[in-house]
Amino acid sequence: MPQDVLAYIRHNRNELLARLNEFLSIPSISTDSAYKNHVNEAANFVANYLTEIGFETVEQIKTKGHPLVYASYNQAGADAPTVLLYGHYDVQPVDPLDQWESEPFKPEIRNDRLYARGASDDKGQVFMNLAVFEAYMKVNGKLPVNVKVCIEGEEEIGSENLYAVLETKKEQFQADFAVISDSGMVDTNQPTILYGLKGFTGIEVRVSGPSHDLHSGLYGGAVRNPLMALSHIVASMKNIDEVVTVDGFYDDVAPLTNEERELMRAVQGEDYVASTGANTVVSEIGYTAKEHTMARPTLEINGMYGGYQGEGTKTIIPATATAKITCRLVPGQDPEHIQQLLEEHINKVAPTGVTVEVIKEKLSAKAYKVEPTHPLITKAAKSYTKAFGKNTVYVRMGGSIPVVEWIDAIYKIPIVLLGFGTPDDRLHSPNESFPLTSFDKGMETLIYYWNEVTN
Amino acid sequence: MPQDVLAYIRHNRNELLARLNEFLSIPSISTDSAYKNHVNEAANFVANYLTEIGFETVEQIKTKGHPLVYASYNQAGADAPTVLLYGHYDVQPVDPLDQWESEPFKPEIRNDRLYARGASDDKGQVFMNLAVFEAYMKVNGKLPVNVKVCIEGEEEIGSENLYAVLETKKEQFQADFAVISDSGMVDTNQPTILYGLKGFTGIEVRVSGPSHDLHSGLYGGAVRNPLMALSHIVASMKNIDEVVTVDGFYDDVAPLTNEERELMRAVQGEDYVASTGANTVVSEIGYTAKEHTMARPTLEINGMYGGYQGEGTKTIIPATATAKITCRLVPGQDPEHIQQLLEEHINKVAPTGVTVEVIKEKLSAKAYKVEPTHPLITKAAKSYTKAFGKNTVYVRMGGSIPVVEWIDAIYKIPIVLLGFGTPDDRLHSPNESFPLTSFDKGMETLIYYWNEVTN
Repeated sequence: MPQDVLAYIRHNRNELLARLNEFLSIPSISTDSAYKNHVNEAANFVANYLTEIGFETVEQIKTKGHPLVYASYNQAGADAPTVLLYGHYDVQPVDPLDQWESEPFKPEIRNDRLYARGASDDKGQVFMNLAVFEAYMKVNGKLPVNVKVCIEGEEEIGSENLYAVLETKKEQFQADFAVISDSGMVDTNQPTILYGLKGFTGIEVRVSGPSHDLHSGLYGGAVRNPLMALSHIVASMKNIDEVVTVDGFYDDVAPLTNEERELMRAVQGEDYVASTGANTVVSEIGYTAKEHTMARPTLEINGMYGGYQGEGTKTIIPATATAKITCRLVPGQDPEHIQQLLEEHINKVAPTGVTVEVIKEKLSAKAYKVEPTHPLITKAAKSYTKAFGKNTVYVRMGGSIPVVEWIDAIYKIPIVLLGFGTPDDRLHSPNESFPLTSFDKGMETLIYYWNEVTN
Repeated sequence: MPQDVLAYIRHNRNELLARLNEFLSIPSISTDSAYKNHVNEAANFVANYLTEIGFETVEQIKTKGHPLVYASYNQAGADAPTVLLYGHYDVQPVDPLDQWESEPFKPEIRNDRLYARGASDDKGQVFMNLAVFEAYMKVNGKLPVNVKVCIEGEEEIGSENLYAVLETKKEQFQADFAVISDSGMVDTNQPTILYGLKGFTGIEVRVSGPSHDLHSGLYGGAVRNPLMALSHIVASMKNIDEVVTVDGFYDDVAPLTNEERELMRAVQGEDYVASTGANTVVSEIGYTAKEHTMARPTLEINGMYGGYQGEGTKTIIPATATAKITCRLVPGQDPEHIQQLLEEHINKVAPTGVTVEVIKEKLSAKAYKVEPTHPLITKAAKSYTKAFGKNTVYVRMGGSIPVVEWIDAIYKIPIVLLGFGTPDDRLHSPNESFPLTSFDKGMETLIYYWNEVTN
């Protein structure tokens, strides 16, 4: 039976790619209100596709922000499990636009990769799941599992309204397990089980000094420079050994076991120099870069600014300075507690002469980890291996997917992360792309997986 | 004899003010090419006035930009000294125009202040010098000193062509000392000798890490964050005690003598909290804010930026980070040497994993200081005190005036800064004005001064 479904996606590859291109052509940038109509257009695309496939209920759930597309299919039979499929149809902004080699919303294939914003994160992967459902319906007239679909439009702006929907519509969304395709593999063609994700929290630090920009000649020497004050503050939060130097930051971090270090060693190492363009790899002292990114907490400055940014010189002491800081957390670390520790640290080191305000990012998430021996996980590994013809490796990831934590917290069901992205996809950057091999073999993996799960 | 000259300016006050108003009515905005004809008109005004007064040679020296008005008078006698008088006839732009209470180029007197663009900076002060020469000529038929006049039209755009003129026409401009009226007093009616100016130098620090912005979840832990690296670098350049921690930075700084500290203490302190809006004054440990701004070198971050600056969160590791840093220098410090020290320090502390580039600002200036006990200075103080009826205070200033360094470097002559502006003049801002007391007593000061110098 899966052979027929596999044949369908092979025979209809061009049509499926054309339809994906249509989806990718919609500039559904959720963070920018100028694109609101396009975000709605993308939601309509998803809803229409689900209707066309044959989902019984297709609904756009309104939120304070962008709509969430819900759909359900319940004809797989009482014995078949019910899966909750999560994904998102919104994308990141595209600036700096001049660094794109082709237009972000005009998909283009080069070197066996599909270039477009959202090609990997997450429209491409959402589409693959829907296309597999289409194939099952077209070939078998039914799906092998009961499905509840939850495709949101606010993932790139922190899934602001998702938690409330998941919590208030618990019965509507309840399922036996969840599948999410919004992640990646450690290398192109290297099937990868992602069994752990980092948590996430953030703060913004705003330093105010003088009430207005000052002449650096007339006032330099009489006031504290907000940019220098901020540099002192942030430099005190992580040392040159890449160790976070905020009191208590590592208190709830479980030591990395030898077994886990072994699993990580089994993963072919990513060439971080090649994939990032940095001149050398740098990681926390005592840990490899792989261990640090996968399984140790991090603290990063995402943005920092103040004063004059134009050409040449403007001799001012700026009135304000701002830093945006986020942390990736591991199991055991509580996001709110970490925010508290960061705030306490900042208040402790803040120099005189400036006012320092810490704004706590509302959105945060705990880390997630599932046992790599769970049957739903081993079946996924088997499906990957079958599709890609290569042993599956097990990894944890530095990224955070808040929805994973929420589904875990609200529904208490296993979550299977079936991701097909690759390290070269340039998520959130110019020239985002997705390998066509992932497109083809990813859909195969999904087909094998639904077959495994129902047998 | 000075009594007759003083009487002349008193009797002719209305005529002199009317003539100044004519000068102030010319919108000689040097930065805006739309005003080019008006800039020429202002140069003509100066040249015509000098001719009318009786200067023997009056010449407009063409430059790549706006002309420089040169004039010389050599009938004071072989024993009389020759003074080089510097000033500028160009003015700053006037926007935002809607914040002016009267039109910037329609001079108006309100509350004993003359409101107009250029009233203080520097047309008003240039005019006062010329008016005093007029008075001497009308009363005595001659000037007490030989004079070389240098009034440029590009001060507000960085005196771009002045250095070349001063250097190539050295013989023509050579004098025994220089007088510049383009500065201010510490308070209205508080005669002030400005005997030192700071020098200036700057660098831009560019830190490059990854070749593109990275996902902080996927790569946090494997690469150095350029903003964190830059924060470590700049935080290492000045400590929390406001001491510059760059090796050798203070090596050529002469210690502040008790005599100078005494001179500074005699100056009524500026209320830095009120004038800056900072919550408290902060200065180099061991020095008051007044001492630090006037007489100790400073290092300031004028601008710093990298990564995401929009609302909310974007979880990236930025590809680059930049800081613009300038220093104000004191006598003894060489700008190029300081740039060198900054670069060496940065190269020493730059962490692995990033590339750090130091771009040296081309424009720089040495500090200037004249001994407060120099006879040309003590005579100036005596003249101020006589005119204003109040003891003269001695100050150094944190700002830099490039022409002062250039005259010092090329002509190696004492420079006397006879300024009559006040802190309320709003230079470069809407509603620039100049107190009429400064107009009257300033001219008196100049008359007493020429008398002192030649006796």
